Amino acid sequence: MEIINERMNNGDRSGNLVFDIYPLSSYYFSSKPALSFKDETLADRARRLKSNYDAHGMRTCVEAVILVELFKHPHLLLLQAKNCIYKLPGGRLRPGESDVDGLKRKLSSKLSADEDYYQTQWEVRECIGTWWKSDFETLPYPYLPSSGKNPKECTKLYLVKLPSSRDFIVPKNLKLLAVPMCQLHESRKTYGSIISGIPQLLSRFSINMVGS
Amino acid sequence: MEIINERMNNGDRSGNLVFDIYPLSSYYFSSKPALSFKDETLADRARRLKSNYDAHGMRTCVEAVILVELFKHPHLLLLQAKNCIYKLPGGRLRPGESDVDGLKRKLSSKLSADEDYYQTQWEVRECIGTWWKSDFETLPYPYLPSSGKNPKECTKLYLVKLPSSRDFIVPKNLKLLAVPMCQLHESRKTYGSIISGIPQLLSRFSINMVGS
Repeated sequence: MEIINERMNNGDRSGNLVFDIYPLSSYYFSSKPALSFKDETLADRARRLKSNYDAHGMRTCVEAVILVELFKHPHLLLLQAKNCIYKLPGGRLRPGESDVDGLKRKLSSKLSADEDYYQTQWEVRECIGTWWKSDFETLPYPYLPSSGKNPKECTKLYLVKLPSSRDFIVPKNLKLLAVPMCQLHESRKTYGSIISGIPQLLSRFSINMVGS
Repeated sequence: MEIINERMNNGDRSGNLVFDIYPLSSYYFSSKPALSFKDETLADRARRLKSNYDAHGMRTCVEAVILVELFKHPHLLLLQAKNCIYKLPGGRLRPGESDVDGLKRKLSSKLSADEDYYQTQWEVRECIGTWWKSDFETLPYPYLPSSGKNPKECTKLYLVKLPSSRDFIVPKNLKLLAVPMCQLHESRKTYGSIISGIPQLLSRFSINMVGS
């Protein structure tokens, strides 16, 4: 957990925290064999989540907010599955796994070569937002469910800082997209509450587009 | 500006920042004479803002996010004017004034006795979000307008920590409300984008309800 509480670079003149991002053209993209996904009905999924909850308690997911610059505007990296589902790179923690270790494991499996499992450096910065579900089928909320009800699922968003250059290796059944900040905001129908709220969560940072 | 970058208390076990809030019943409320507001048409207001922009550049507003506990749920303090307009306590910076000094001045004029102008301690914590307008009449966005266009207005939200007890003295023409977090989220029509987005901006904190 050593990196979670590390702070951003120095603030700018107005006291905002500065976060450096690099042009999309600084990165290289290739593909690797498809990841296998659990192919199941919604009812099967609800049953599986319930039995996991009974065994291990609240399900915790960690997801990465990764930015690049394109046309002088910040863009968010999203994974697209089956042409219509948009997801942040990340996934579920194993029981006992720390947020940062779990997120690094998930980032390696979805965005790097498998042999890089322990080698790719992922610079996980601070948690920028948390969403809770009081039931597996409900929408997520950015606050704990009202008293007396234990949350079933918690999704934590972490800012991940890219180096100035990197290779991304993406499973063939996923598409990696760079979506402009201005398109995410107010597009909850397309991207869901969590992703469409990211521009707000980042608004306290002063985003510095290096070399643009 | 000394307080802006001061950090929250220690994190909880999951690495979240802990923020203490106190019950609404710990605070005392009374009133003072009405504040005078500029009574003007929308067109007059747009003209005034434009002439201020020509003279001083971008208009900067600083607003306070102040929380109390009620029924074991965090509530946000809002000011209500004319029965339908909801505002965070705060206002426009004077030219050259720092964010923290301006916010303390505005908090004293709207929430304290006037003679307390320099006495009331307001603990201004970090900036949790920023919104920009590219024109005076447009909606605010949580990112800078696309390149080439200078923003006309910037609104910065600061978390303000209350002490465990305090007197609030509110102008007679304003009503001070405590609105539950769960009512703000997804009520953009009533409260506007900035206020309805506050639950998200606070979701990275672990809110500790002291004494509840």
